[in-house]
Amino acid sequence: VILVVTLNPALDVTHHVARVDWAGVNRPERVLVRPGGKGINVARTLRALRADVQVMGMTGGVTGDAVRAALVASEVPAAFTGIAGQTRRTFAVVDSERRVTALFNEPGPRISAAEYQGFRAQYAAALPGCAAVVLTGSLPPGLPDDCYAELAGLAAQAGRPALLDADGAALRRGAAGRPAVVKPNLAELERAVGRPLTSGYDPVLVVGAARELMSAGAQAVVVSLAADGLLAVTAEGIWRAATRGRGTGNPTGAGDAVMAALAHGLVLRLPWAERLRRAAALGAAAVAAPVAGEFLAADYHREMARVRVSRREET
Amino acid sequence: VILVVTLNPALDVTHHVARVDWAGVNRPERVLVRPGGKGINVARTLRALRADVQVMGMTGGVTGDAVRAALVASEVPAAFTGIAGQTRRTFAVVDSERRVTALFNEPGPRISAAEYQGFRAQYAAALPGCAAVVLTGSLPPGLPDDCYAELAGLAAQAGRPALLDADGAALRRGAAGRPAVVKPNLAELERAVGRPLTSGYDPVLVVGAARELMSAGAQAVVVSLAADGLLAVTAEGIWRAATRGRGTGNPTGAGDAVMAALAHGLVLRLPWAERLRRAAALGAAAVAAPVAGEFLAADYHREMARVRVSRREET
Repeated sequence: VILVVTLNPALDVTHHVARVDWAGVNRPERVLVRPGGKGINVARTLRALRADVQVMGMTGGVTGDAVRAALVASEVPAAFTGIAGQTRRTFAVVDSERRVTALFNEPGPRISAAEYQGFRAQYAAALPGCAAVVLTGSLPPGLPDDCYAELAGLAAQAGRPALLDADGAALRRGAAGRPAVVKPNLAELERAVGRPLTSGYDPVLVVGAARELMSAGAQAVVVSLAADGLLAVTAEGIWRAATRGRGTGNPTGAGDAVMAALAHGLVLRLPWAERLRRAAALGAAAVAAPVAGEFLAADYHREMARVRVSRREET
Repeated sequence: VILVVTLNPALDVTHHVARVDWAGVNRPERVLVRPGGKGINVARTLRALRADVQVMGMTGGVTGDAVRAALVASEVPAAFTGIAGQTRRTFAVVDSERRVTALFNEPGPRISAAEYQGFRAQYAAALPGCAAVVLTGSLPPGLPDDCYAELAGLAAQAGRPALLDADGAALRRGAAGRPAVVKPNLAELERAVGRPLTSGYDPVLVVGAARELMSAGAQAVVVSLAADGLLAVTAEGIWRAATRGRGTGNPTGAGDAVMAALAHGLVLRLPWAERLRRAAALGAAAVAAPVAGEFLAADYHREMARVRVSRREET
């Protein structure tokens, strides 16, 4: 089973409005409510891949109840540690005429030291029974920046590979826990190393930044390049998985689909070239799906045929 | 006890954002969650006036649980009929820099005929024990337009006065239930009679429209004129309660404060002039408060001294 850790899950509420009046009263035509956050998207994608998955994290309040109930309904196994605070909401307002979406992400409940220790004990107890761990998403207020380093370290001690997707200090510090894979996008990698990388893609700079995360402890770094696919820097070499332009779609959740495929490929012990092909294809298929954590099998298979994987000369 | 009926209560979520990006990701600085809807605002104001109050209505799902829990916490007595659907949310985005607020009001859950009958039985059983009934707010999907007419009619049969605040067909049809008072604002009155009233205030036209609602069954009509106060057309005559410009503030909930004062004045058997003085003053005080359903006693007393009540010649 793949353990997916989501420390700051959310109840995602989406309002579809024909044309938003940003200074007035709007009556949404369609209201969607679903559990969200990166971990839950990864878990949903893993389930769609028919992988064994188990979600862990912390939930509280009526929004936490709603997240739990929805996961039961969608048959994603989850075991949450209860907290006193209220699980956060995210609000998305989709303006269908102008084709823009505004997102409002609540920070999440403050976690006490005792609550985090309760979660950590539950997590440590689950490690021996799992094949790999996915650590993904923002940290709720109250958790230290090295939280992912500690959770990845516990996984390493138990002999279980951890895959990490985080941002800012949580990513920078998380590498110290020796995760098997970290998966930043270009903007996250830029923030982690503190050097500009997003103005014109320069593979030499990106590989250099990835190596910096490896010096900090990461065993491999897979950089997602949005519509251009993936670049992987590993102990066995450097790979590029190029996709053929993703067209229009919903980029939210594409990174989570890549993460799910990387975790699945790791557990299946696929060679890097094949892991990356599947991850790049699944990321492209996820962009074509309207909802994060979902994709059409036909899109996935079409993209599989389109991905070009190449091993790079060392730079 | 004053029975306040809220058929479509809401969980009001407010996000305060420094400067909203309508096409991007926002992180609210402040998140407020509270039970809302006109009925709950009226009940909260009645409690602040130290009136005995009891909220009735229908709630469901985790948002319904949140509404119930918050009313318990704020000591507003409430007895809700459970429904299968989910109580609606309203979402407000306050842009603090631009000083604009966008509101997103979900329509509410569809009510089945059996659920409404369950509510109606509970309501009918509560009527003998109450002094007056407040019927206020939108009707959730599934309820007929003449729903308020029926509920006001049941109150009349039980010898209890009903006060009605509704819009569109619910107001137009509701008058047939012979409510003691209906309280439209100018725009609502305009929609009820289907003639323009909001382009320049003309008392003759407004009194004419109010009389039309009285012909349909209403025993008195109190029209709220926003910053200008109230105009009341009753069997005993016509009154005007003029306020002295309300300045800036939050008009949401001012109408609910007026409704609360009208219900309280009716139960206390105050003469119309005094009822209207209090209602106009409380409406003005509510505008000065940042949150619907609240006001400062100092503001209320100051406004009481400012209101000018005059009896009008018949027009």
